[in-house]
Amino acid sequence: MDKLIDRMKEIHDDLQIDKVRVNDYNIRFGIGNDMGNGDEWPIILEKVKSCDILVICTPIWMGVRASIAQIVIERLDGTTKGDDAQFLLYNTVAGIVITGNESGIHDVAANTFFNLTHFGCTIPPNTDLYWVGDAGPGASYIEARGDLSPYVNRNTELTARNLIHGALMLKEFPYTVDMRPLKKKLMEGNKIKMQLMKEANQKFEKRLEEL
Amino acid sequence: MDKLIDRMKEIHDDLQIDKVRVNDYNIRFGIGNDMGNGDEWPIILEKVKSCDILVICTPIWMGVRASIAQIVIERLDGTTKGDDAQFLLYNTVAGIVITGNESGIHDVAANTFFNLTHFGCTIPPNTDLYWVGDAGPGASYIEARGDLSPYVNRNTELTARNLIHGALMLKEFPYTVDMRPLKKKLMEGNKIKMQLMKEANQKFEKRLEEL
Amino acid sequence: MDKLIDRMKEIHDDLQIDKVRVNDYNIRFGIGNDMGNGDEWPIILEKVKSCDILVICTPIWMGVRASIAQIVIERLDGTTKGDDAQFLLYNTVAGIVITGNESGIHDVAANTFFNLTHFGCTIPPNTDLYWVGDAGPGASYIEARGDLSPYVNRNTELTARNLIHGALMLKEFPYTVDMRPLKKKLMEGNKIKMQLMKEANQKFEKRLEEL
Amino acid sequence: MDKLIDRMKEIHDDLQIDKVRVNDYNIRFGIGNDMGNGDEWPIILEKVKSCDILVICTPIWMGVRASIAQIVIERLDGTTKGDDAQFLLYNTVAGIVITGNESGIHDVAANTFFNLTHFGCTIPPNTDLYWVGDAGPGASYIEARGDLSPYVNRNTELTARNLIHGALMLKEFPYTVDMRPLKKKLMEGNKIKMQLMKEANQKFEKRLEEL
Repeated sequence: MDKLIDRMKEIHDDLQIDKVRVNDYNIRFGIGNDMGNGDEWPIILEKVKSCDILVICTPIWMGVRASIAQIVIERLDGTTKGDDAQFLLYNTVAGIVITGNESGIHDVAANTFFNLTHFGCTIPPNTDLYWVGDAGPGASYIEARGDLSPYVNRNTELTARNLIHGALMLKEFPYTVDMRPLKKKLMEGNKIKMQLMKEANQKFEKRLEEL
Repeated sequence: MDKLIDRMKEIHDDLQIDKVRVNDYNIRFGIGNDMGNGDEWPIILEKVKSCDILVICTPIWMGVRASIAQIVIERLDGTTKGDDAQFLLYNTVAGIVITGNESGIHDVAANTFFNLTHFGCTIPPNTDLYWVGDAGPGASYIEARGDLSPYVNRNTELTARNLIHGALMLKEFPYTVDMRPLKKKLMEGNKIKMQLMKEANQKFEKRLEEL
Repeated sequence: MDKLIDRMKEIHDDLQIDKVRVNDYNIRFGIGNDMGNGDEWPIILEKVKSCDILVICTPIWMGVRASIAQIVIERLDGTTKGDDAQFLLYNTVAGIVITGNESGIHDVAANTFFNLTHFGCTIPPNTDLYWVGDAGPGASYIEARGDLSPYVNRNTELTARNLIHGALMLKEFPYTVDMRPLKKKLMEGNKIKMQLMKEANQKFEKRLEEL
Repeated sequence: MDKLIDRMKEIHDDLQIDKVRVNDYNIRFGIGNDMGNGDEWPIILEKVKSCDILVICTPIWMGVRASIAQIVIERLDGTTKGDDAQFLLYNTVAGIVITGNESGIHDVAANTFFNLTHFGCTIPPNTDLYWVGDAGPGASYIEARGDLSPYVNRNTELTARNLIHGALMLKEFPYTVDMRPLKKKLMEGNKIKMQLMKEANQKFEKRLEEL
């Protein structure tokens, strides 16, 4: 992670970095912007909203992203589809940094990237940076000297360059789609659909009872 | 869930049920049996240890299991591989109940079942019980009358029968593998491997510097 | 794979083994029992039907099971839910052997096991046997001496024992659920549901046009 | 799919479309550019190389992408990392169209998009277009009138606009990273690493024998 940041700073000298260790915040479960009871998600959300490049760092746990990363994704789901229906992360590029002592990279990276595209992010090529050991329990990144891995080092380079390129590209060429009329139409259609489904289910219940 | 329990009670009249709503407990992140600071995982762990049938219920969130279910899996990972090296859930059968307003069943069920086999569980055929709506946002199980679904109802029957059968089968025919000598050998081997890897990495670092 | 077979033979001396290299057969795409044009799936299907223990072996490719394994799963989907509505693999236990040069184990094992439970298989604890290297391109199992891995060797032992135990257990205690009445009810219910949905969609189309 | 194409043509009037139904070609398994025996992958590969927008269409089967889509991904893996070490799909944007009668979207879309980023593709926000029915067997897209779905229609709009925007953006602002020096360094490093691992494994074998 730090190597990635260093390399990104070298590539683009006017880069501002804000590292957030989510575990240091009191992040509650839920779907609102602020779940109360000291929920500190709003602090993180402000940071996320303002960034051009979002890099999520997570360990793998039981083959998937750690619960703390899952909570971040859930909270983003609740809070990136604002009142004006404009997804907050349109015009943000995303990368990911993953470590684990074995297998699970594809699941973590694939699901997290896909989730992020649903919040509006653009995913450049080769912006997943990861290290895992071979099968079974074993040393983690630091003890195993993951920093020596030629693959990790190549990917640090690609991730750094492509994130910077992607962010500059979106600055020049931002997505301008207006979600509001699309959202309005979606909600109108869904309202009718749900009403018709309700009627169909009432008939269905009667018909099943007659069986 | 309640329909499943009712049906299981009909099939086996001496069934004791303990429903645990994990959200009602203070479950902390971590890998120990008791993470302190009011961690209530030990209470849940006792229940899990003593059951013959373990059914995990979770919503889907962003295509995967909700973070609260992920925390349960992480805590089980930390605490089911006890001092005596015997996985605590050997001789437990597992089922799953999943709801969501759209897609994600396979990911949630597949990962959760696979994780549970690593804690010792046996997975009978057709013990995944789920409902999801069609693509997009929409009504949840209750509003959408998922209870009318012929598929849900068939699967309630199969899940109930196969969980009961599986539990009785394991009572008669328990796994007796002793993990201790296996774990001892694994750890001895890993210790040597890690030492050799460390030496190899020292050489590797030198060689890379020379490049 | 061969080490697993050898160990299983040691544990149970009356074990008959049939290794099928699916690539040596002409397996066509499709959902029928026999897709014609020289389709050799029926030969494999006979073998699958008659076994007590089914072990699928596959490499990982791009983080998931190789296409040839996916074809096997698709063909099993088409042909394990026979005329008598009894899933053909009820009372079969399943294991998996996976290799790859990096990450992907969890996805392959989890999805394959879950698919197999839908065909009727029982999944014992710890019957996934795998080896992968660390992050990035690299040596495969043989060159990397995966056979030395303490983790692989422990899992060979567990997989062998638990598959044998599971198969003997199911011989003594077979599932006896009769799928036919359940299938009949499912199909009757679905027929009504689909008719009602069709009517609802006709109304929906009219209402959407009016918008 | 056709609705997506129509909408894309409306948005950008100079759009050339080439629909390839992979099933109509003789695509062999393998890792080379041309596997011989009438392999028609080279024909498809030429089309893929020349496109600015790549949209993969696949059904879901057993919760994951169909085997034919998996073969396409495997062949792309073998053939997009060409002699000049430049990934062929850098500067291509990707979308996906998925249908299935139930659950599986997230797995298919997430894995396919992630795989495509490894071949060089950029993934714009909201370019996954899908329809699935509710839980269980049921009508497919056409019978179920998926075309009426407000969600499908909103996503057709977003997918069309964002793919066009993404392609124009990459025309103006192409990635220029030169993979060759990176690949050279990766391969040099890996060669040393593999030699050292081999030596370490020889020692490991001896040490394990002594145990």
